[in-house]
Amino acid sequence: MSNPKQPAASAPTTAITPTREENYAEWYQQVVRAADLAENSDVRGCMVIKPWGYATWENVQRVLDRMFKDTGHKNAYFPLFIPLSYLEKEAEHVEGFAKECAVVTHHRLQPGTKADGKPGLVPAGELQEPLVVRPTSETIIGASFSKWVQSYRDLPLLINQWANVVRWEMRTRLFLRTTEFLWQEGHTAHATSEEAMVETLKMLEVYADFAENWMAMPVIKGEKTEGERFPGAVNTYCIEAMMQDRKALQAGTSHFLGQNFAHSSDIKFSDANGSVSFAWTTSWGVSTRLIGGMIMTHADDDGMVLPPRLAPAHVVIIPVTHKPETAQAVHDYCVKLAADLRTIHYAGRTIDVELDARDIRGGDKAWQWIKKGIPLRVEVGPRDMEQDSVFMARRDRGHKEKVSVKRDEFLATIVQTLEDMQSGLFARAKAHREANTQRIDSRAEFEAFFGVKNEAESEETSSGGSVKGGFALAHYAPDPAVEDELKAKFAVTCRCIPVDGNDEPGTCIFSGKPSSRRAVFAKSY
Amino acid sequence: MSNPKQPAASAPTTAITPTREENYAEWYQQVVRAADLAENSDVRGCMVIKPWGYATWENVQRVLDRMFKDTGHKNAYFPLFIPLSYLEKEAEHVEGFAKECAVVTHHRLQPGTKADGKPGLVPAGELQEPLVVRPTSETIIGASFSKWVQSYRDLPLLINQWANVVRWEMRTRLFLRTTEFLWQEGHTAHATSEEAMVETLKMLEVYADFAENWMAMPVIKGEKTEGERFPGAVNTYCIEAMMQDRKALQAGTSHFLGQNFAHSSDIKFSDANGSVSFAWTTSWGVSTRLIGGMIMTHADDDGMVLPPRLAPAHVVIIPVTHKPETAQAVHDYCVKLAADLRTIHYAGRTIDVELDARDIRGGDKAWQWIKKGIPLRVEVGPRDMEQDSVFMARRDRGHKEKVSVKRDEFLATIVQTLEDMQSGLFARAKAHREANTQRIDSRAEFEAFFGVKNEAESEETSSGGSVKGGFALAHYAPDPAVEDELKAKFAVTCRCIPVDGNDEPGTCIFSGKPSSRRAVFAKSY
Repeated sequence: MSNPKQPAASAPTTAITPTREENYAEWYQQVVRAADLAENSDVRGCMVIKPWGYATWENVQRVLDRMFKDTGHKNAYFPLFIPLSYLEKEAEHVEGFAKECAVVTHHRLQPGTKADGKPGLVPAGELQEPLVVRPTSETIIGASFSKWVQSYRDLPLLINQWANVVRWEMRTRLFLRTTEFLWQEGHTAHATSEEAMVETLKMLEVYADFAENWMAMPVIKGEKTEGERFPGAVNTYCIEAMMQDRKALQAGTSHFLGQNFAHSSDIKFSDANGSVSFAWTTSWGVSTRLIGGMIMTHADDDGMVLPPRLAPAHVVIIPVTHKPETAQAVHDYCVKLAADLRTIHYAGRTIDVELDARDIRGGDKAWQWIKKGIPLRVEVGPRDMEQDSVFMARRDRGHKEKVSVKRDEFLATIVQTLEDMQSGLFARAKAHREANTQRIDSRAEFEAFFGVKNEAESEETSSGGSVKGGFALAHYAPDPAVEDELKAKFAVTCRCIPVDGNDEPGTCIFSGKPSSRRAVFAKSY
Repeated sequence: MSNPKQPAASAPTTAITPTREENYAEWYQQVVRAADLAENSDVRGCMVIKPWGYATWENVQRVLDRMFKDTGHKNAYFPLFIPLSYLEKEAEHVEGFAKECAVVTHHRLQPGTKADGKPGLVPAGELQEPLVVRPTSETIIGASFSKWVQSYRDLPLLINQWANVVRWEMRTRLFLRTTEFLWQEGHTAHATSEEAMVETLKMLEVYADFAENWMAMPVIKGEKTEGERFPGAVNTYCIEAMMQDRKALQAGTSHFLGQNFAHSSDIKFSDANGSVSFAWTTSWGVSTRLIGGMIMTHADDDGMVLPPRLAPAHVVIIPVTHKPETAQAVHDYCVKLAADLRTIHYAGRTIDVELDARDIRGGDKAWQWIKKGIPLRVEVGPRDMEQDSVFMARRDRGHKEKVSVKRDEFLATIVQTLEDMQSGLFARAKAHREANTQRIDSRAEFEAFFGVKNEAESEETSSGGSVKGGFALAHYAPDPAVEDELKAKFAVTCRCIPVDGNDEPGTCIFSGKPSSRRAVFAKSY
């Protein structure tokens, strides 16, 4: 430890308190804070996405947007507000409809006397019809689709929207479940059921591709059982990932809506012979929740670990200059290095570089970047400069490991280094999932795997160590009553029935009925 | 007219009814409709931005976002909702505060009995404190800034947000004034007044650069008089453009907020000596209104005319195939042409191409693209293919003019062609502004220039021909009473006091007081 480039002895060896092992839920919040990704606002359940977190989201958007356009979709934008009458139309189809959502009832604030008798601003100008802030846009987009679609020539209609949506959540957690969140929602209309189903599965594939090849997060593609379907959907497909605490995260959904929404929104077309039919529609979405998934898949006890392909910046260059007489030369050397890096292409853009010349302690600076999860940290001092080399640390190798690399070699190998890290993160996450996935062939095994639900166990307090189980692969004949029981007793849900592989027929471990394939069961976010 | 590639004789020679001359306001609405840019929704004052309009907005975003990042700004995202208490803090500074905005008062919809006695969904779960849908985000972003800024090392803080905002407008018009609109809002904090002022003017410059060099819309950069300032701002700067009906459009604003918002949001920092001061802040924004500005600057009686640098697509290729035996060959030829075009770089991206092989009448197809304003229309038939040439029509040359160009020449010159169109549009708009700008040296001249306000004259009914005036450059000693009178009598406002050029001192034409420079007066949107 005599190398002066190591963090000073006083620097903490674990950046995040508590560790994952000690308290997983609290560790998550601390990583978000330490990595400067987001923070809570004064508005209940609404988050502020800070620049580092937002830049990560921009990369998610950029890559997905390209994928959507390459599969023929066009972006558009629809109103934030949904008239109450639209939801009433939908509510006719939904038993016991009650929606937790933000309801706009007035269109003015003016001085007046508040409920507590004090003077202040009060709502005025009551609306004839309340408006709901969109929780999702099937109804409002359906209203446009019913105008846009007249003939079979107008189909398929392939639209995507990037937007904010609001769901009045009781318990919120940064990125994973917030009252307002950012997402994209695809909405398409087709002439036939088959085409709509092809679209539904195509977008599921796009999501899986993105999750695995960009987020380095392995996922299982599957179909939801009836109880977990999107209300109004005929089939709901999803991608499910295993987090480091062995819980499942639903990371994206793709819905085949049949003609249900076409009926309620009156989306009809005439075919070549002039006969009129309802269209077949789909919808699909992913949200800022993906950032939560990235954190819980890759971050460690030192902080965030960003998959290089989506990192807001790939490299931070830190000039290490103790002597004033070499400061300018080292700085210039770093500026030139940054410029050279920025000419290198990687993952659809050029290498993004931060040059951190702030006047703060070197150890603090290094730790800030470790916690932010930047893939590569490079330090350059006068001696490195003389030798035309840099000190490089990889975020996936632990904070103590740094190697001296010749400048030319560093530049020549950086793309390969980043790709090694990307595939290494994926492999590690996949090994974790495989180690914690078990084929279960009886109810007794199932109960042993998950353990009885502890009354005190809640999302907020359970630690990684105490959560039992992982992914259980079990034969299952879907039955809502069974799922209600599993939820109540074990806090376990059927995550999905995988769409590929894993096909051997068997017998449901709960009912003994025949099952054509195994389903995935897990605790979840 | 014997050329078979001309639109059929039955095609209308004027695509938009009415023309600009006949009814400018109605012409505008018809262009938006015919170009498929946007449409009204069932939600009062909220628009649906259709794919062609949204793709134009995406180009605006892409270019501006790069400009913001190049000037050191980072994007972030803040909550949609603002607590009432934040606005009450602000209201203390604002006399007669009353805001037309969307007020959220409940967080649930549930079945119940509506005001008309019928069963339906009713709001439930009343909020303790109502929330306002952001009309602008100074207060909510200020709350974060007050946490983020502690030391002079945290400054300058340069943040931008892309977001939707809501203002409950009484009279709305697509893009120009809608209840919900999309915009960006920059918010920055600085250690000194000077730095904040430099930032304010830098962003004004960025807006002017964007308007002129990307939108091809000439603008005057200027400062608003007191009565036209953003509430709470010390200085408000703006870019003002002249539309084809000679009215002004405020296309962007940049505010120097002094320490006013730092006081109400408590944004303080300690300097190197540890003494604590309030920060100096700025804010600046442009919105989807820019699309309205593009339409009213460039569109003609045939429909939209897109500035090539921001056009969603630069070229449409239309295969013209009457004989089945040549159809495939012509189609393949067009596909190859599209692929070659897509390798050409132009204005920060590659050439965007639409290949329109739809089975509809050629004349209708051509007119659809004319109305959409695509810069270049290219038709390829069997004979063109044999001669290795294409028929090309430029959108800025009238719908009848088409020329045969060798394929190689077309590819070799397309960038120059697009740039010619871009600069031609700018020159035409600038000539229009200059022709309708007059130096006015007395009140009598001023009144003659604008004419007395006609009682029946409203934005909705006034035609381009009947609106008097244009831009009047007159010496002016700012006085709110004068501005109130001008507004009431002539529907004219002081648009701005230009920040550069035009410096000769003089005498206010209204009060006879000294004036250091001329101000711009106009009717406006």
